[in-house]
Amino acid sequence: MEINLVSDTVTKPTPEMLQQMFRAKVGDDVYKQDPTVIELEETVADLFGMEAALFFPSGTMANQTAIKLHTNPGEQIICDKWSHIFHYEGGGASFNSGVSCCLVDGDRGMITAAQVEANINDPEFYHSPLTRLVSIENTTNKGGGACYDIEELKRIRQVCREHELKYHLDGARLWNALVAKRQHPKQYGELFDTISVCLSKGLGAPVGSVLLGSRDDIHRALRIRKILGGGMRQAGYLAAAGLYALQHHVGRLEEDHRRARQIGSVLKELHWVNKVEPVETNILIFSVKPQYNENAIIEKLKQKNIFISSMGKGKLRLVTHLDYREVMHSYVLETLQKMTI
Amino acid sequence: MEINLVSDTVTKPTPEMLQQMFRAKVGDDVYKQDPTVIELEETVADLFGMEAALFFPSGTMANQTAIKLHTNPGEQIICDKWSHIFHYEGGGASFNSGVSCCLVDGDRGMITAAQVEANINDPEFYHSPLTRLVSIENTTNKGGGACYDIEELKRIRQVCREHELKYHLDGARLWNALVAKRQHPKQYGELFDTISVCLSKGLGAPVGSVLLGSRDDIHRALRIRKILGGGMRQAGYLAAAGLYALQHHVGRLEEDHRRARQIGSVLKELHWVNKVEPVETNILIFSVKPQYNENAIIEKLKQKNIFISSMGKGKLRLVTHLDYREVMHSYVLETLQKMTI
Amino acid sequence: MEINLVSDTVTKPTPEMLQQMFRAKVGDDVYKQDPTVIELEETVADLFGMEAALFFPSGTMANQTAIKLHTNPGEQIICDKWSHIFHYEGGGASFNSGVSCCLVDGDRGMITAAQVEANINDPEFYHSPLTRLVSIENTTNKGGGACYDIEELKRIRQVCREHELKYHLDGARLWNALVAKRQHPKQYGELFDTISVCLSKGLGAPVGSVLLGSRDDIHRALRIRKILGGGMRQAGYLAAAGLYALQHHVGRLEEDHRRARQIGSVLKELHWVNKVEPVETNILIFSVKPQYNENAIIEKLKQKNIFISSMGKGKLRLVTHLDYREVMHSYVLETLQKMTI
Amino acid sequence: MEINLVSDTVTKPTPEMLQQMFRAKVGDDVYKQDPTVIELEETVADLFGMEAALFFPSGTMANQTAIKLHTNPGEQIICDKWSHIFHYEGGGASFNSGVSCCLVDGDRGMITAAQVEANINDPEFYHSPLTRLVSIENTTNKGGGACYDIEELKRIRQVCREHELKYHLDGARLWNALVAKRQHPKQYGELFDTISVCLSKGLGAPVGSVLLGSRDDIHRALRIRKILGGGMRQAGYLAAAGLYALQHHVGRLEEDHRRARQIGSVLKELHWVNKVEPVETNILIFSVKPQYNENAIIEKLKQKNIFISSMGKGKLRLVTHLDYREVMHSYVLETLQKMTI
Repeated sequence: MEINLVSDTVTKPTPEMLQQMFRAKVGDDVYKQDPTVIELEETVADLFGMEAALFFPSGTMANQTAIKLHTNPGEQIICDKWSHIFHYEGGGASFNSGVSCCLVDGDRGMITAAQVEANINDPEFYHSPLTRLVSIENTTNKGGGACYDIEELKRIRQVCREHELKYHLDGARLWNALVAKRQHPKQYGELFDTISVCLSKGLGAPVGSVLLGSRDDIHRALRIRKILGGGMRQAGYLAAAGLYALQHHVGRLEEDHRRARQIGSVLKELHWVNKVEPVETNILIFSVKPQYNENAIIEKLKQKNIFISSMGKGKLRLVTHLDYREVMHSYVLETLQKMTI
Repeated sequence: MEINLVSDTVTKPTPEMLQQMFRAKVGDDVYKQDPTVIELEETVADLFGMEAALFFPSGTMANQTAIKLHTNPGEQIICDKWSHIFHYEGGGASFNSGVSCCLVDGDRGMITAAQVEANINDPEFYHSPLTRLVSIENTTNKGGGACYDIEELKRIRQVCREHELKYHLDGARLWNALVAKRQHPKQYGELFDTISVCLSKGLGAPVGSVLLGSRDDIHRALRIRKILGGGMRQAGYLAAAGLYALQHHVGRLEEDHRRARQIGSVLKELHWVNKVEPVETNILIFSVKPQYNENAIIEKLKQKNIFISSMGKGKLRLVTHLDYREVMHSYVLETLQKMTI
Repeated sequence: MEINLVSDTVTKPTPEMLQQMFRAKVGDDVYKQDPTVIELEETVADLFGMEAALFFPSGTMANQTAIKLHTNPGEQIICDKWSHIFHYEGGGASFNSGVSCCLVDGDRGMITAAQVEANINDPEFYHSPLTRLVSIENTTNKGGGACYDIEELKRIRQVCREHELKYHLDGARLWNALVAKRQHPKQYGELFDTISVCLSKGLGAPVGSVLLGSRDDIHRALRIRKILGGGMRQAGYLAAAGLYALQHHVGRLEEDHRRARQIGSVLKELHWVNKVEPVETNILIFSVKPQYNENAIIEKLKQKNIFISSMGKGKLRLVTHLDYREVMHSYVLETLQKMTI
Repeated sequence: MEINLVSDTVTKPTPEMLQQMFRAKVGDDVYKQDPTVIELEETVADLFGMEAALFFPSGTMANQTAIKLHTNPGEQIICDKWSHIFHYEGGGASFNSGVSCCLVDGDRGMITAAQVEANINDPEFYHSPLTRLVSIENTTNKGGGACYDIEELKRIRQVCREHELKYHLDGARLWNALVAKRQHPKQYGELFDTISVCLSKGLGAPVGSVLLGSRDDIHRALRIRKILGGGMRQAGYLAAAGLYALQHHVGRLEEDHRRARQIGSVLKELHWVNKVEPVETNILIFSVKPQYNENAIIEKLKQKNIFISSMGKGKLRLVTHLDYREVMHSYVLETLQKMTI
């Protein structure tokens, strides 16, 4: 039994999800004739109270499309220094949209309205890039699953309004924030110009993300998705998994969060652990004391069939998810407590 | 019963294909851990005798990645004036790669080695774009499913070699050419730097294309696919359909071709038909006499539950495919013969 | 004495122009503090009755900026198949703006309103690039100095209006058209969204072009010029030459045209000349009979100190200009008449 | 008498420089036929012991061309967080080259080899941009004219070699560093792949920069310069000023540095000044005590005909240059000492 805590993207569909996929009605989504894709798009749009939605093969493409929707080449995005859009989308913001990132020194991946305001370039000073978009991430990936205070998000909205900036939410793990903070999707829908949400992380669907926005933005997004090569034919099989996940896998994220917290509590007691970052959702980041080597820890755990990943410089990360079940959890807790380093 | 002859992309998986899809072993393909995707990639690479292959969510993304692999911004592609990469990929060659297309006036979408040679810009004349890539399409889409003479393709290869140009084959419907010309994939694998083939047109899989190339090119393609947002997680469900299609749906393309030819023979006898273009594979293009209106024909057929499409200026197109079965075919032939215009 | 008829870009300032250059008042134009640059920009804007103007180091940069002003990546320009923006700007439309060119088969570089209309892509069909801009050239460079009928330009304007397309004039040699057709710059100013005019071809200034447009477009053009690296400091020395040229070198273009026509008349009588294209301005294109080689002609003339250029396939080109004076002209006419081939 | 200490770009040519400009031999540099431009390029290349050089209308274009030479879209540059290429080139790195900047937290604009090494992305981890180029600035603009220790530059060279990174020097004010550190251009020529140097700042020429590199890089740079629109015709007038400046205005930079130091000494004694940053060359940055407002200081000095600029947050900047002469300097020192705040 392999216990993979490297990421929550490694989950496989449950038999029930697979059944729903198998039974999906499909059509050619490039001609917008796939009823299951349309149902998914409408369902998610309704959930967030936003006008329209579009299905994508990946969260990266959903984010990249949002960036392209809101910017022109040469312009600038304000985002946290640890942003997924800057670090883990292959340099796509520059490649696909020709824009640069003004990296803000946030707290666990979260930035403030004051920081946003301080980093807006004077639009009349044409030597500097025109600031056009603020992009935030909730929960934060590299920030260890941290959740924004929604009041701060509202203040950023206000700054965007005053300076005519667009406002995008990379919500790859927004479901986790919604559950952890007991919030409703509509609270986000009313704040942002566009939101991307992922079906294949905590929710456990095999493939896909959804981009939300105004009817006009989503109409334009269709063209961008085509250009990037994201138009799929009978995509309803994938969308069906997403629909199933929305019905059955949102509430259960609380279990992932509980397990992550419990692992954190165990780690805090271990002599070789230096610090455990606050655990708000399903990502747990901790560091080892200077005399220990993080790669040795990874190796040791691998011998026990537990897989976690390094973030460099003594930091380690693990992520709980749908396929990490209670029996595995008991084993992990026990293994950590007993393990001699 | 709706008979959709608008495109061969509208097919739905057969029950057997669906069975194979949902029995597939999957993993996270972003980490290259999906065994079914890997099996598909290796199978197609072996079939063409090429070093490596990569699965894509669309043919557009496979082609766009090939263009990016072979060019730098500002450079130029030589291709037919009717090329899919110029007309139907949303302007992606310019958007994704910053390159322009030198459009050659070919014959039914097919260009010659002499035309290629005549359109290469002098590399020392820096006012003109540097010619870098020749991209051909086989069978041709807008050219009505025409198939290249492989001797001409070899001559173009020779011109590319002499002028240090890369050579890409948009093989969205290459399977049709292979069957129609009784050729082997390896005859193409040895000619081209990269080849894209589609699993979702004639082959009837729901989603996906494969890009073939050298190990080094495909390694670089992985990064480009990531940037464009084409990295999918448990993509094995889609790959499984492709594998099934390769095993069971290639040979049967001959049926699609026969049916297209038979429709052509019927059309030739009709008083309102002006000209039927040569039918080499599964695409049939014909024109109506000046006194008739092509849209009226489309409407008339729609009333009989037969759907075909207009190419403008009196031209009509129909495409046969997996879901166009013998019973429908008899009905279509009969309807055409009886229809009063 | 070398007689260079290769291009009208080879001219050197007259002593009077040089005097005016080095008496110019200058300032830092990056801060918009160079009075001579400002005077030039205002003078040209007034001349065309357009709101604003901006000085550029080259006609290529002025055109490229206009393209960027009017388009977004992925979109399409309609232009003649011989356009300078497609052939001789290094692939800049794709490099700088990520757009493609829909090449129209015009007459000596000139396209019609009907051709423009027939080449506009359906904006709802998102597989094809969005048509956004029509760019025309007057006089045409590769078309041999041909001048548009202004009525056709008005009809194109009408098509642009109906389809919400922008309309740019590459007026590198517009001065020649104005003189040849006895037109006023304002007739053009009222038709186009942007116009580029060159100071360093027929007008004989050493460096520079001017882009004309609305106040808002030129405000945005300043930023694009900065990004491309076209912001120069004390550029007034160059602008002064342009101002001098506008005052003293426009009317005299008629001489260049007359000389080109006279050379044409002589060429028509020569046994080895196949065809002389219509001579409307200062560019003359002619072809040699099949049994003669154009490069041999070029060599022969070079021995007589007359330099002209090849356009390939038996075609030759020569261009008259400010530094091609009457004494040279008599010599050229005589040499052509006497020369044994 | 207006004393402009806002930037060293505001200088006007001396009568002697203007004479040399006026007498320059020129030709069409687009055809590489301008003897003065060629002389300038060869002179600068020889000075640095580099293979070749190319003249540009601006430092921005020289830097942007270097970035394009060394990178492909999607890749990443490592540079200081205050870099000119990130802040003051209009977002050109992303616009022109599609690349992003990994911003390092340096000291007064200067980064270390250790920082470079720590910021190189793992080339096998294809989610992150490929690190391709290190770009440093010497002297630093936003860092207040700070000069690198050449030993650190050699260590960065070593890191670049080990990781196959390119190495560019933005030497807009390199002349100041050479004079301040008593270094020879060849010490830089042997370290970097490309170097841009400016003729219009400390050196006092009206327009122009030069890019230095290998013969092959400069050959490719010619094409990029064309695409960006930087090809100028009779540019020899501008190049002549650069040649004059190289002969007569390098050594005298020591005067600018002395004057900046002397102003610094005076400022240190003033009760309203908080801190004077180290003065190494011709840029002086200082801050006012919290109870004073920097804009009020600017206004007060303006009334005395002295113009300096704000850097925000209580910081002020002044720059000495060729047109800031001894009589002005005495007046500035006296004014500062007497001024009541």
